[in-house]
Amino acid sequence: MSGATSRLKNILGHISGGSSKSPTGFDHEHHLHPLSPTFFLERAAAIEPDAEAIHHVTANGKVLRRSYGEFAERARGLSYFLVKHGLKRVGILASNTPAFLETIFGVVAAGGVLVPVNYRLKPDDVTYIFDFSEVDSIIVDQEYLPLLEGFKKSHPKVRIIVDLDTDATEGPDAGPFDQAVIEGLQYEQSQETKGWAGLPQCTGEDDMLAIPFTSGTTSRPKGCVYTHRGAYLAAIGNIVESGLNYQQGRCKYLWTLPMFHAVGWTFPWSVTAVRGTHYCLRKIDYPLIWDLLKKECITHFNAAPTVNTLLCASEKAERLPNPVRVTVAASPPTGHLFEQMPVHVYGMTETYGPITKGYHMPEWDNLPPAERYAQMARQGHGFVMSLPIRVVKPELAEQGILVDVARNGKEIGEIVFFGNICAKGYYKDPEATKKLFAGGALHSGDLAVMHPDGSAQIQDRAKDIIISGGENISSVALESMLVQHPDVLEAGVIGVPDEQWGERVKAYLTVKARNGSTLTPEAIIRWARDQSNISRFMVPREVEILNELPKTSTGKIQKNVLREWSKKGKKT
Amino acid sequence: MSGATSRLKNILGHISGGSSKSPTGFDHEHHLHPLSPTFFLERAAAIEPDAEAIHHVTANGKVLRRSYGEFAERARGLSYFLVKHGLKRVGILASNTPAFLETIFGVVAAGGVLVPVNYRLKPDDVTYIFDFSEVDSIIVDQEYLPLLEGFKKSHPKVRIIVDLDTDATEGPDAGPFDQAVIEGLQYEQSQETKGWAGLPQCTGEDDMLAIPFTSGTTSRPKGCVYTHRGAYLAAIGNIVESGLNYQQGRCKYLWTLPMFHAVGWTFPWSVTAVRGTHYCLRKIDYPLIWDLLKKECITHFNAAPTVNTLLCASEKAERLPNPVRVTVAASPPTGHLFEQMPVHVYGMTETYGPITKGYHMPEWDNLPPAERYAQMARQGHGFVMSLPIRVVKPELAEQGILVDVARNGKEIGEIVFFGNICAKGYYKDPEATKKLFAGGALHSGDLAVMHPDGSAQIQDRAKDIIISGGENISSVALESMLVQHPDVLEAGVIGVPDEQWGERVKAYLTVKARNGSTLTPEAIIRWARDQSNISRFMVPREVEILNELPKTSTGKIQKNVLREWSKKGKKT
Repeated sequence: MSGATSRLKNILGHISGGSSKSPTGFDHEHHLHPLSPTFFLERAAAIEPDAEAIHHVTANGKVLRRSYGEFAERARGLSYFLVKHGLKRVGILASNTPAFLETIFGVVAAGGVLVPVNYRLKPDDVTYIFDFSEVDSIIVDQEYLPLLEGFKKSHPKVRIIVDLDTDATEGPDAGPFDQAVIEGLQYEQSQETKGWAGLPQCTGEDDMLAIPFTSGTTSRPKGCVYTHRGAYLAAIGNIVESGLNYQQGRCKYLWTLPMFHAVGWTFPWSVTAVRGTHYCLRKIDYPLIWDLLKKECITHFNAAPTVNTLLCASEKAERLPNPVRVTVAASPPTGHLFEQMPVHVYGMTETYGPITKGYHMPEWDNLPPAERYAQMARQGHGFVMSLPIRVVKPELAEQGILVDVARNGKEIGEIVFFGNICAKGYYKDPEATKKLFAGGALHSGDLAVMHPDGSAQIQDRAKDIIISGGENISSVALESMLVQHPDVLEAGVIGVPDEQWGERVKAYLTVKARNGSTLTPEAIIRWARDQSNISRFMVPREVEILNELPKTSTGKIQKNVLREWSKKGKKT
Repeated sequence: MSGATSRLKNILGHISGGSSKSPTGFDHEHHLHPLSPTFFLERAAAIEPDAEAIHHVTANGKVLRRSYGEFAERARGLSYFLVKHGLKRVGILASNTPAFLETIFGVVAAGGVLVPVNYRLKPDDVTYIFDFSEVDSIIVDQEYLPLLEGFKKSHPKVRIIVDLDTDATEGPDAGPFDQAVIEGLQYEQSQETKGWAGLPQCTGEDDMLAIPFTSGTTSRPKGCVYTHRGAYLAAIGNIVESGLNYQQGRCKYLWTLPMFHAVGWTFPWSVTAVRGTHYCLRKIDYPLIWDLLKKECITHFNAAPTVNTLLCASEKAERLPNPVRVTVAASPPTGHLFEQMPVHVYGMTETYGPITKGYHMPEWDNLPPAERYAQMARQGHGFVMSLPIRVVKPELAEQGILVDVARNGKEIGEIVFFGNICAKGYYKDPEATKKLFAGGALHSGDLAVMHPDGSAQIQDRAKDIIISGGENISSVALESMLVQHPDVLEAGVIGVPDEQWGERVKAYLTVKARNGSTLTPEAIIRWARDQSNISRFMVPREVEILNELPKTSTGKIQKNVLREWSKKGKKT
């Protein structure tokens, strides 16, 4: 009762004000319910309690399979535990484990706010985020407990709940997280209203439900305020755009994308809404991934381009009998990867993950491969649940004036977003929020062109454009050309200071190990000169071949590290 | 400018009040846009202007193909025409023509309200609806102009715009509707702000956008108030539930379901959102439908069970090489039809069409056919965009008290609905609206049982339950048993007064013509006695074989007509 009634009373908050009747003369709210994605788990468990919700190889090396009935019960148990102890702001520091999924649903059902943190961050940054976001509790996978040492000392009152990630739910192998779940379920039994209806759930659809943080390559990470409504609509959008409502069966979704990253692009909710199976993963383990792809017939996964590149380069790689729908984003993917990768999306933490898609046009099938890949590499158009994206003149955009660039595929501007798939702002940072929404648009900071068909294509982050001899060189475009070389695996291109040209182009490459390549920098430069699509001024002056490129925790090539290396003359 | 700004100012109406800041400390609306489905057409035309939007065999016998660019332009033209003439409440009386689709988008983009009317109604009812809904204009297909004779006389000021449904857009074959489109496009050119941005569009997502009417079998038709938000969420729900986001191509949707019926279950918006092709139809013409299924490779259609029955009975029927996803609803379909029909939905005009789905469970594939069909015949669970349905005790439901029946598949109660896929109420009828939402639930008036797995199964409309010798007999259940007879095509069962038993069972049947059946009433009664699933008290005492069953305009068997016939002893 309490939950349902207060939910209905608070829907949108706009009718119960009583100040004005709606234009249609009704003053009730019977036709409304708040858009909140936590409901999807309650619903999945009600419809199909025995459906496999979770498959996971645990920290103790067991295969754990959990049904939707079990998943829902555990999330509900955690939720009652949080309610019992008055915990409302819950940090999570874990890899893609079942506990992470249970936490996402449990915290939000308790009327709380989730703060997911990247476990690859330095302890300092972890402390900063948990302090800044004012968590009253943290659920932490045992593996990442050392990251909390400093925080625990400075914040002794914050409750730490350790998950051992075993296959046990009780007994000696179960840990404090499992005990919290059991305690919550016992507490539920003592309540007058039990089940989901006894939990606070969503108080209003425009209220905050999570604060994922940006990766913060240049400054302190910023917390993005996600709302119930935004997460719900983004999650439904992802079902439609990635085709998770797979045929008539259930999708089998492999968790290669970190859940801490933009709350896994809202896919914890999307996959649950269609009662798909979550294939959890403690880490990116390519042989294990290939096993799952082959034996479990995975239907969908999302990943940064680099994960795909390395996945395809794995020794266990082979053509699969069943089609797998891969959704790729993060940094702009390079053209040649698309032979295996059909769904190309783009977005950022500030847009709940993906907000654009390169819609496949039937006429592309008749194009030569190079032209087809060029089309597929575009970021495309706004999602079905978004408003259209725009590319606006960057110098005016800074002043909050939105003027579109020409639709000519040449004029470079900033991509901006509008509407429901935009985060509400930065947590406790009105200045940054104001700047983020200058002129009423969410500013991506990414530079792009707008093609005549209204599709956008990213060129570079502003700082990644190389200006050499007065020519603007897109490092992204050049990288996608360099990986066309049959032996090149990945490329990172930067500009280094040059007295004569202002900047000159330097490329860092990795090569495909299994080809036993003997590629030399000189050979690459020669090859680049011969390519018809690489202009003279774009040909790298210097090439360095590395064993590995430096990357951020989310798989983006760290250009700032490459710039450091080039300054110091460092090689690997 | 004007459109966008006023739209954002009025989103939900709840933030601009200024009385309170949101809990997260932001007072902007940059992260919101109103949920309104008209945007899908603007978006489709922007992304893929050359995609085929409409295929239609016109009244003058031509095949018309229209792209999304053309579709959008014509809808926009109509919209500017309506704005120019200050027309805000637009009736539409047409079969499933391109003009109907253009009207749906054009009227709503003009900030107007659409009133679709069933062209199979008596002129009296048509007059009643257009008068009651206060239309200021009517778009009418030439074929149905005679239905408006009376209305025109009593309402001379209402503007009538005739559509000839030809393939011409200008010149002698074009009609007043096309001229209105052209006039609107010319008017657009004189405006400062052109395109969709210059149109009023959605003023608030909880505002009314259409008033489809119930079929009104017993009383005057009632107008259901549809909102922008409700239509948007229902349309997206239909994409997910019917799988319109078909693979990577575009769906090809055949319009066998009347667009006047619950605004075509919101499919005009759903199909447009995924840039599918609308295959329009002037009427249910089975040979033409089979041609389209075979030659155009239709991927989806929706229909009442009767349409499917007759479609499968057509001489041109054959197994198709490509799978077609059929979504069936209206009256509860009988089990044996499901060999061809996979998606089973249920709803009513008051719920934007479908609101439940019989989700296919993988374990059904291992059941014997009869048990599998029994499972598939259930109405199932609430849609992903709905709250869960409930089945409540009917005597308490009347008093607005909601108490669930036992989940035993036996206790009969009333199905009730909650949440966003409920219409806002009945237009200008506060009494009926109050009754519709008694106790805060939308009352279906349909009797059902709740199975242990939480899926509901309709038994009958309250008045269709037959009480014979103290036994409750579900006429729907009995009908589904009678059509198991290999020669029976359709069955309609009623109770007729009986001195001894209170009521006795009478069955009206049609037989499969192409079987050249010589079935007699006596043979059916004998056969029914031998069936293990037909209880003794359910065996019909009387059987009549007809050439055709009387049906409503939406394909439901008219039990009231059968009752009349039985009273008068009338035979066909």
